[in-house]
Amino acid sequence: MLGKASVGIGLLGMGVVGGGVVRALFEKDQQLTGLIGCPVTLQGVLVRDLDKQRSYDQVRDLLTVDAEGILNNPDVDIVVEVMGGEDPALDYILKSITHRKHVVTANKEVMARHGERILSLAREKGVRVLFEASVAGATPIIAPLLRDLVANEILAIRAIINGTTNYILTRMANEGADFTATLEEAKDLGYAEADPTNDIEGIDAAYKLAILATLAFRSTVKDTDVYREGITRLAARDFLYAKELGYAIKLLAIAGKQDGAIQVRVHPVFVPEGTMLAKVGGVLNAVDVETDLAGRVFFHGRGAGSMPTTSAILADVVDVARNVAGGVLLQPSPAFSESLRVRPIQELETRYYLRLDVADRPGVLAQIAMVLGDLGISIASVIQKETDEVAHQAEIVLMTHRAMEASMERAIEALEGLKDVRQVGNLVRVEEFE
Amino acid sequence: MLGKASVGIGLLGMGVVGGGVVRALFEKDQQLTGLIGCPVTLQGVLVRDLDKQRSYDQVRDLLTVDAEGILNNPDVDIVVEVMGGEDPALDYILKSITHRKHVVTANKEVMARHGERILSLAREKGVRVLFEASVAGATPIIAPLLRDLVANEILAIRAIINGTTNYILTRMANEGADFTATLEEAKDLGYAEADPTNDIEGIDAAYKLAILATLAFRSTVKDTDVYREGITRLAARDFLYAKELGYAIKLLAIAGKQDGAIQVRVHPVFVPEGTMLAKVGGVLNAVDVETDLAGRVFFHGRGAGSMPTTSAILADVVDVARNVAGGVLLQPSPAFSESLRVRPIQELETRYYLRLDVADRPGVLAQIAMVLGDLGISIASVIQKETDEVAHQAEIVLMTHRAMEASMERAIEALEGLKDVRQVGNLVRVEEFE
Repeated sequence: MLGKASVGIGLLGMGVVGGGVVRALFEKDQQLTGLIGCPVTLQGVLVRDLDKQRSYDQVRDLLTVDAEGILNNPDVDIVVEVMGGEDPALDYILKSITHRKHVVTANKEVMARHGERILSLAREKGVRVLFEASVAGATPIIAPLLRDLVANEILAIRAIINGTTNYILTRMANEGADFTATLEEAKDLGYAEADPTNDIEGIDAAYKLAILATLAFRSTVKDTDVYREGITRLAARDFLYAKELGYAIKLLAIAGKQDGAIQVRVHPVFVPEGTMLAKVGGVLNAVDVETDLAGRVFFHGRGAGSMPTTSAILADVVDVARNVAGGVLLQPSPAFSESLRVRPIQELETRYYLRLDVADRPGVLAQIAMVLGDLGISIASVIQKETDEVAHQAEIVLMTHRAMEASMERAIEALEGLKDVRQVGNLVRVEEFE
Repeated sequence: MLGKASVGIGLLGMGVVGGGVVRALFEKDQQLTGLIGCPVTLQGVLVRDLDKQRSYDQVRDLLTVDAEGILNNPDVDIVVEVMGGEDPALDYILKSITHRKHVVTANKEVMARHGERILSLAREKGVRVLFEASVAGATPIIAPLLRDLVANEILAIRAIINGTTNYILTRMANEGADFTATLEEAKDLGYAEADPTNDIEGIDAAYKLAILATLAFRSTVKDTDVYREGITRLAARDFLYAKELGYAIKLLAIAGKQDGAIQVRVHPVFVPEGTMLAKVGGVLNAVDVETDLAGRVFFHGRGAGSMPTTSAILADVVDVARNVAGGVLLQPSPAFSESLRVRPIQELETRYYLRLDVADRPGVLAQIAMVLGDLGISIASVIQKETDEVAHQAEIVLMTHRAMEASMERAIEALEGLKDVRQVGNLVRVEEFE
């Protein structure tokens, strides 16, 4: 392949992120030319509606509703996909690769579900597929896993990779507000979508964790492999107890490897207050990587937004454009040769926070302790507060030592069967590290 | 250039870091072969003393005191320099490049002082020089600046890049200990060297900041351009006041760009308690990068040690070994075309913390306020405490609004001339961000 006088870009999508990419391509054209060695030229922009008002009039002539026109254009060297969603993005990405075009995508859903197929086709066709923007926005994490930490064995990843939920949890912690009110506020501020299911149920974080775990463990992990619990069950008083016990509550995406098997899970976690992850506030993202050589490395920054996402996309564009401009043989897309077993959540061993509504009667705590003890779960600390004198109802909060999730599932069932336990208020896993 | 069946490494230095590199090359040989596409073979290890007892007996036959033997060995593709110091490391690096060998180095001193010459020779000879390990150890920062944040304009870098001083400051803050005692303790624990000058005077941090600023602003910045103040003047009570005012005290390395000129400085800083940098404890390192697109990105991890430094070195080795193994045209070493003016510290505009020992007499504060006011320095807050009733001595602590350093220099001189000001206890710059 010979070097080129100009690198052609085909852009699929002109929403918030696409608009940012176009703007940066124009405003930073000199900088990009300097970095790449030749100019980057936008060859076409796929949109759904040609007549929609756009802030960037320079690209009016490049707008098209014809995807094939971009995917078949011989002047397009790199297809930048920022449409989002699985359909038709997956189809366009595969077609781009088939036409031997490099792909830069921000699409977490497609990469989490079809990454193996996409990267395998890319290796076959000798093109590169880069996807830094698909996880944690402007915060570099994919290149660091593939490059900076490449000599390490990755032992665990603990990440806050959903800004909406971190915003909600930060507000709940700071203001003692309850979940529903905080969610509505997040919607008003544009931090949560009208249908927030993907965020608050951990679906978005599971996509991203699948991508990170695949790269970290070099073994294909899909979003459906990820155990998932959302943040909807967290109550204002869980945050009060967490604080009293020295923890923050975060929706963590955790991937760990042990004894040749991996565990991938997204759920609310009690995070020790002294850790960096506990201090990640608002819509920010962070990824903590535990390794054999480097120890723990922590990355923190913006996880979404037009310009932050553009930052990640352009880093990938410059990387692959240098290959195109230099006419060099290409770095192959990563292959994931390992095939590690994914352990079910029942095999998890961790500490637990357990909040129970109980009858305010002598011997209740003894009954609870016996249920737990019979299942090998030992109690580390107890907080008991009388919550409703009239109803003779009290609240018991327990922190356990490390126990098996399978035992805890049986314990919850048994506790729910106790006459004096009115309700299991919440059960939250506790992550101890450092 | 054709691809190779094996990539040859020549190692210069077999100290703490060199030992880690050798160990990892042996223990991770399969992983490295998989990543590179062919094996990495250690061809020779330069040591000073052939007879010294080593933990790795596998390399006994490779040890040599003859540098030329390694630098001239046609089977050496990559020279890994982990000797440290300027002489003879610089000479060996230049000779390696002249012999068209790629170089991976952890040498901050050489890169800060001679980076331009080294990288220019590397471009001329068509080889790569990589130096991720020279700043912040295992924490990726050089590759992120050159790759992940490449489309950004870097506005500022604020970094904790000296573990020894951060350890001392963390202990002083947590325990109210004074500087000398804490330094001795750090020496006992191996966190400070017998002669700690390079660390406690900010010399080590200045080397690293020069490297980061050069990459960030694409303009050669040398260690001698960096304004530098050490941590020796910090007293236990500065930490008490800092806490009272809502700050941590950190030795920050700061590089900023404004109006086409840059400012590079290493000195103690009052850092707002809510920021990530304020929470960096012990010997850990962190780099906070402020950009136009990505916003703020924060990197945190181990800054030194055998295996963490090895992690960074091997990332560079794998990167360049893939080029060697693939027989591809090489990515050029970065060039720094800009030539930005370095602003003297007198042009700094910032807030200040000022601690004064004064005579406990009416009107002292008025005199001080008048001196400051005359120089255009306005006071944001005052803490006055009687410290010694017998000696009629009091302590006044002031926080100023933003003021010019040149004005503050004149103010200090004028304050020292006041009869009732017995001593200017300390002056510390305050960094407000976020």
